[in-house]
Amino acid sequence: MVPHLITTLTGPINELEQRILESMPAIERWFRLEWMEHTPPFYCAVSLRNAGFKLAPVDTDLFPTGFHHLTQAMQPLAVQAAMAAIEKICPEAKNLLLIPDPADRSAHYLLSLRWLMQTLHHAGLNVRLGSLDPAIKTPTAITLPDGTQLCLEPLKRLRGRLGLKNFDPCTIVLNCDLPGGVPAVLQGLHLQYLLPPLHAGWSVRSMVRHFQAYEEIAKKFAKLLGMDPWLITPLTGAGCRVAADGTGLDALAASADALLAKLRRKHKEYGIGDKPYVVLKADAGRDGQNIVALRDAAELDAQALRAQLFADGQTAREMLAQEGVPTHERIHDAVAEPVVCMIDRYVIGGYYRVHAGRRADENLAAPGSDFVPLAFAESHHLPRRGVKPGASAPNRFYMYGVVGRLAMLAAAYELEATDPDAESYE
Amino acid sequence: MVPHLITTLTGPINELEQRILESMPAIERWFRLEWMEHTPPFYCAVSLRNAGFKLAPVDTDLFPTGFHHLTQAMQPLAVQAAMAAIEKICPEAKNLLLIPDPADRSAHYLLSLRWLMQTLHHAGLNVRLGSLDPAIKTPTAITLPDGTQLCLEPLKRLRGRLGLKNFDPCTIVLNCDLPGGVPAVLQGLHLQYLLPPLHAGWSVRSMVRHFQAYEEIAKKFAKLLGMDPWLITPLTGAGCRVAADGTGLDALAASADALLAKLRRKHKEYGIGDKPYVVLKADAGRDGQNIVALRDAAELDAQALRAQLFADGQTAREMLAQEGVPTHERIHDAVAEPVVCMIDRYVIGGYYRVHAGRRADENLAAPGSDFVPLAFAESHHLPRRGVKPGASAPNRFYMYGVVGRLAMLAAAYELEATDPDAESYE
Repeated sequence: MVPHLITTLTGPINELEQRILESMPAIERWFRLEWMEHTPPFYCAVSLRNAGFKLAPVDTDLFPTGFHHLTQAMQPLAVQAAMAAIEKICPEAKNLLLIPDPADRSAHYLLSLRWLMQTLHHAGLNVRLGSLDPAIKTPTAITLPDGTQLCLEPLKRLRGRLGLKNFDPCTIVLNCDLPGGVPAVLQGLHLQYLLPPLHAGWSVRSMVRHFQAYEEIAKKFAKLLGMDPWLITPLTGAGCRVAADGTGLDALAASADALLAKLRRKHKEYGIGDKPYVVLKADAGRDGQNIVALRDAAELDAQALRAQLFADGQTAREMLAQEGVPTHERIHDAVAEPVVCMIDRYVIGGYYRVHAGRRADENLAAPGSDFVPLAFAESHHLPRRGVKPGASAPNRFYMYGVVGRLAMLAAAYELEATDPDAESYE
Repeated sequence: MVPHLITTLTGPINELEQRILESMPAIERWFRLEWMEHTPPFYCAVSLRNAGFKLAPVDTDLFPTGFHHLTQAMQPLAVQAAMAAIEKICPEAKNLLLIPDPADRSAHYLLSLRWLMQTLHHAGLNVRLGSLDPAIKTPTAITLPDGTQLCLEPLKRLRGRLGLKNFDPCTIVLNCDLPGGVPAVLQGLHLQYLLPPLHAGWSVRSMVRHFQAYEEIAKKFAKLLGMDPWLITPLTGAGCRVAADGTGLDALAASADALLAKLRRKHKEYGIGDKPYVVLKADAGRDGQNIVALRDAAELDAQALRAQLFADGQTAREMLAQEGVPTHERIHDAVAEPVVCMIDRYVIGGYYRVHAGRRADENLAAPGSDFVPLAFAESHHLPRRGVKPGASAPNRFYMYGVVGRLAMLAAAYELEATDPDAESYE
């Protein structure tokens, strides 16, 4: 049931895989030391793209919703990781309040939510769902496709604490990035652990900041391994504020142009036949994904882009240009990209996002995408040394787990930098 | 491939299973708080016996050698548990020295050793084997049944540190309980972590002390669950020193008699048809197992026991009487007992020890025993609430994992009590 993966079996990605495998003890030690200094987010899902010549993260989701794509064999790992997380955060914990996305009632989302509830329950907690939806005024059952039910309960705020009727949690886990801003009911909760913190939502996060942190981390990591950090980094331009009247578009095009020039040199250096491209993205990750892909800045259709960007009535939007990383993985002819799931500092598994209707250079996180839950069935925990690079699924998955953790670490740096309660040492 | 298990489906064991499942959050919280105060041994394997009317640990091995009986699906859990252990013990660790039992070169032992090396390597360490065998003067390959090799290297002591040629470990893991006492090469290693500590060997440990600690823990645990601690405790008498001339045998018989009287009352209280029995054991767990089983103290054949006890030329031996717990589990008609394996505070899996030639009241850890590696294949991490007690393998295994952890906690208490370097607060 492990899908047949097709990736280029030659070139830098296999050197990278071999380098990463050989350096496993050094890498694990490096992560251990980083986690002593930096707190991992409670959970995280990182989308990667394996271009054959490089492997890079393209999205770091701090409110993952694809847990149900993991295989059953991965759940015990998730339970154990959750146990370790809880032990660290609040060993006295009995009750955990999970706050789902009030806007999502899709079957996929409910399955992921149930998986998360089960995992946290098996880690030894009483878990209940508190809803941000003002329409939920009494406990309300919602039915899953298999006929089982989840119960949404109205939140109850009592001075500094948030809970449900007869349920006082010590920890609150958010599974929703609060696009409409932070509701009053979640503000000022200083007596409970709120995970991830409120500033992990896209109303505060910035793609540019995330990838700056990632670049810094990737440089340190690449130095440890004696390799070019570009092999694991998507080059990212500075943020450009684009207004509805077109102001800022020139700066964005210039940023894209500068990236393309750098990329052409890189492709030449490595003898890569693919023509480089950049994607223009919104800095707030939630606001659409890769809005446009360009192989040449001159291709930029300012009119069309403005129409697309400001269709929702906004007057300005922070944008960025980023190296486009094609994905050279295929499952049954469909373009695929791996998603690595983590709880606390542990990789608990992964799955493939597949899109039959998209090309290798297109964004797969789009309507019509599908998921292959069994892809990471061979464990990333059991790499095999001595197997020919590129030929062993566990080795490939170990490499994915390493790059996934680098992106999670970048999120940890990011959350530290934006923490409103951080002590200032200036 | 999950073996068909037969256990009585009625009676106290199912009440216990249900109570344990219902109390999962309280139990996990209780363990978390215990592990804040007490350090778990590095690894541990606990043999249990499920009598249908009670479930009790009968042996707590601090140098486990049966890891190769675990299924492959359990290894990622072991890797993750080892990562958590190392992070706590020595986050800067690069190198780990594993010291195997120099007296055991059986294929079984080598397979378990290889499993342990792989697991520690996958947790991110360079692992090498250092031999206590003085005959190993240069790196020596030993061949496993499948043709692969392990390399034993001579130990190198440099002042306060132990290592190998060009290999300076920060952590040393012992997989041998040093029956001949502590060799000079292992003494005074204050600059490295030695796990488990030297006093975890049977030359220091005492069955009586272990089961006293277990009884104390089981009482606290039973109070939490509102149940009779006897349902999870094997009643254990005090230690009796028996000399080759027969001195002390009367005291041992009296201890056995007192236990039998208590057990008859307990069996009557619970309406248990089985006639109770006690086993006489050596206090140093290594020195033979259940030496004799008695249903009546008058059955004791002093002559035969003395012949058996002192055949090795010893002049005296510390003995104890303990409640005999029959095992009512069967796999294909053979008597079976579960063994729960743990690394750090985490249950990583288990297997069944099976002995076709033995009866339910006999010791299965004897020549001729066999192992069923796939028995714990359904994870102890994923108990299912609402399933009829006794009918769900994951529920049964969760209960086994709980009792296994209680015995591991008893070993932690024991190691604290016997720690020669413990600070005294008197």
